[in-house]
This record gives sequence, C-alpha cells and structure tokens, in this order.
Amino acid sequence: MSAPRKTVHWILAHPQESSVNARLFREGVEFLSRDHDVHVSDLYRQGFDPVLGAADLGAPGGREGNVVDLMGAAHAEGTVPSEVREEQRKLEAADLVVLQFPLWWYGPPAILKGWFDRVLTNGFAYGPTDPETGLPLRYGEGLLAGRRALVIVTAGEDDRSIGTRGISGDIDALMFPLTHGTLWYTGIEPLDLHVVHDVDGFGAADVERESARLRTRLAGIDDETPTSPYRRLRDGEYHGTRALRADLLPGRTDLGIHRRVRD
Amino acid sequence: MSAPRKTVHWILAHPQESSVNARLFREGVEFLSRDHDVHVSDLYRQGFDPVLGAADLGAPGGREGNVVDLMGAAHAEGTVPSEVREEQRKLEAADLVVLQFPLWWYGPPAILKGWFDRVLTNGFAYGPTDPETGLPLRYGEGLLAGRRALVIVTAGEDDRSIGTRGISGDIDALMFPLTHGTLWYTGIEPLDLHVVHDVDGFGAADVERESARLRTRLAGIDDETPTSPYRRLRDGEYHGTRALRADLLPGRTDLGIHRRVRD
Repeated sequence: MSAPRKTVHWILAHPQESSVNARLFREGVEFLSRDHDVHVSDLYRQGFDPVLGAADLGAPGGREGNVVDLMGAAHAEGTVPSEVREEQRKLEAADLVVLQFPLWWYGPPAILKGWFDRVLTNGFAYGPTDPETGLPLRYGEGLLAGRRALVIVTAGEDDRSIGTRGISGDIDALMFPLTHGTLWYTGIEPLDLHVVHDVDGFGAADVERESARLRTRLAGIDDETPTSPYRRLRDGEYHGTRALRADLLPGRTDLGIHRRVRD
Repeated sequence: MSAPRKTVHWILAHPQESSVNARLFREGVEFLSRDHDVHVSDLYRQGFDPVLGAADLGAPGGREGNVVDLMGAAHAEGTVPSEVREEQRKLEAADLVVLQFPLWWYGPPAILKGWFDRVLTNGFAYGPTDPETGLPLRYGEGLLAGRRALVIVTAGEDDRSIGTRGISGDIDALMFPLTHGTLWYTGIEPLDLHVVHDVDGFGAADVERESARLRTRLAGIDDETPTSPYRRLRDGEYHGTRALRADLLPGRTDLGIHRRVRD
C-alpha cells in the first residue's frame, strides 16, 4: 500500500517568464506533480497585490485599532479579501510549501513580502495563547504547524559573498526573518535552504545542472528533515518566551543560537 | 555664519493615518522643517506601486536579459518610470534619509521593500567598478555615498524579544539586510536604529513619550555618527571583496563582524 498522496503549495515571485526561476519553477512543478497534488501561486502572473491596505483592515470607512487587531477581527468576521482567502486555502491544504524567489536587496521581492503581510493573518496563521499549554501560538506552536517549507532562492552572488563571514552576510542569517520570523512563527518548519548561486551569469549548461540538482532534491523531499531545526517554545528554552536561557550557548549572540540539536 | 541648510528625504510606510507611525511622522517632519528642507514620500498616501515589473525592465514588449542588466539599461537610456525617477530625485537631493515603518514579519512592509526594489537601480545606486580604486561601487563605495540614514522602526514586541538573544532575533541582525545590504550597499551610512517597542499597546502618554524622544534625537541628528559603522571595502578587510579576512575577529560568524571600530 502506498503512502497517501501529499499536497504542495508552490509560490513563485519572479517577473520574467524567461528567467532561470521560471524555468526551475515549471520543471519543479511538473516533477512533483507526478506523485503530489500541486497548487501554484505564480504571484506575478496572477497579479497579486502585495500592499496590505484598507481592504485587509476590515470594513470600508475604517475602524480604529492597530493592524494586528483589525486583521484578527477581519478573520473572525469573514471579511478577508477573496484574493487573500484563496491563498490561505491553498496554504491550509498543503503538506509542503515551496517559496521560490530571486534575492533582491537581500530579501524576497515586494510581491512575496506582501504575500506574507496579507495572507499570514492573526487568527489564521498565529494566535494568542493555547489554553492547554499556556504558550503563545507562535514559534513552532503557530496555527500552520504540521507543514514544512522549502525555500528556493537564486542569488547573483557566489557562495563566499553570502557564505559564513561573507561581506553580504551569511544567507542563513539573511533569511532568518523569513525562515524563523515568518515560517517558524506560524508553525511551518523550514527545511535547509536551496540556494542557487551566481545566477546572473548562467548559460544553458548551468541551468541544466541546477535543474537536475533541484529534481534530485525534490525526489527525496517527503522524507527530508532540517539539519538543525529551530527551538520550540514548549521546550522551555526561553525565559518567559522572550530571551534564550542564559545557560544555553552562553556568550553567543548570533542568530544560530535559535537552532537546536536534533532529537 | 550658520551652516548651510541640509536636505532630508523622509519615507513613511504605514497604511493608517491614525497610527502611531503617522503621528511620529507628522511631528518629526514638522520639527525638522524648522531648519531643514524636508521632502517626504508617504508611500501609502501617494499610492506607490512596489511591484518591480515590465515598466522597470525597459521597453514594453520586453528584451531578454536578467533584471540587474535590464534595469541598468533602463537607467542608461532614461526609460525609468516617472514615479521611480521622482523618488530618485528626492533621494539624490538628500543629505539625510529617514526610513520609517512598522516591523511586519521582521522586515519592512511590502510597499517599502518594493521602493528599494524599484528605486535603487543599477547605475543609479550602485555600479560595477571604480576605475581609480578598482573596487566595486558598493558597500560604502556605492553611488549614494555621502548620505546618512535614520531608520525608525516600530515593533509590537518588547526589547527582550527583539534584543540580544531574544527569540525573534536581535533587531540589529533582523535589520542587517536593510542597513547593510541595502543602505550601506548603496553607500548610505546608517545611523543607530531608532526602535519604538511595544507599540500595539500604546496609550496617549506612551505616544507623547516617544514623540519627545524622537524630537530629542532629531535635534542632534546633523552631528550624529553611528556607534559602530560598517566596514569599508577600501580598507582591504575582505578577501577579494568577498569574505572577511581570517585574522579579523577569528571564529566569529555573527553579522556584527561587519562593523568596525571607529576611526
């Protein structure tokens, strides 16, 4: 008996259909579709609006309140814009989320940043406190827990510039606001990054090589686990859910302190 | 004889005119305007489109090429969209750039991220190589050198969550893609961050306190220098402009290694 067919939500953020990203996207989606149900959000092609605005903050005319509270109310009252609700449905259905984008100013393009801003709302992706554990519903306890994410990022730079001690900062640290602050906050476990370096100078052979490397990665994706997962609130490693306990990795202040040794 | 009047470009990214951000913006602009020429970009109010797309990549119909090259060509040929060119003019005229935004998913809102994506183009904000020094025109040598930036960020979290060893990551590390990877890359020197914590629960007295704290900061802004500036390519501290020299802060891998001791 075979394992149940898993569901994937693949989100692409690149403006050019002729790009390396678009090529890897088409091939990756085709490859996974052989034995997965794959839903896509090709943000540029669908004209996704990344600007969180009045429509996300509840009734027109506007109520007073901060953004987090108003978005929570919109979720509770079912007034979330249909474009956003559609993205939430694809995300809810997914076992695996693939986020694919070029590194622009050391982060995701605005169209993807705004997808996080608008789609991962209070009440949908995270919440206040779990009555059973007393823990806030975030950082591993988020409402999207049980899902995993593969982040595929293409960069114009080489593995020294965005490697350990590289002038542009290590890619794992640059991606921390996404992998830890966004995905892990909502409970989604990020797998190790899939980085494609030096992409601006790519020729046909380079694209072939990266395409093959991505297919190999995707072939084993259902059994993959992160090399070093992020710490969970439930393990009691943070003082009152805020700062890492003084006895853990004392003296270290780098973002790597939030990773744990695997069980 | 008084010093020449300096010019400020203040960029705000917040959807609500009733927000703490909007209030600090209005008061800050009014305060600086007494003895500075202040130009503003209130991105929500002006309806700035943050999605880098076909209009930024040159002639309609589209040429082949990667995003960096096409945007460089659009700059050289003068086909940059007028909305973007207008932002570039304000930035060019500024001695001080103020970037003000709420922390959403541990980064700037999409409308500001896309302002970086579209406005800081190849040929305008950075370039290939300086023929005199042989250094790439980035990281302190960028084309916008001579300017300084004040980043004002409001956060729902307290100073433990986004402090050193805080669960959400230290705010200086979270902002590295902006302060180092974006501002410093283009040559703009970031001053120390101006962080407003716990903003979601603010009452009137909290707003008053933060408003006064901001005015105090702004009163001395023309004479302020960063506590610990980023390293300059020209100082030869990176191997071939890529990784930090092995003899500097050996063993450390945190993003703080890119800061230098002040001259």
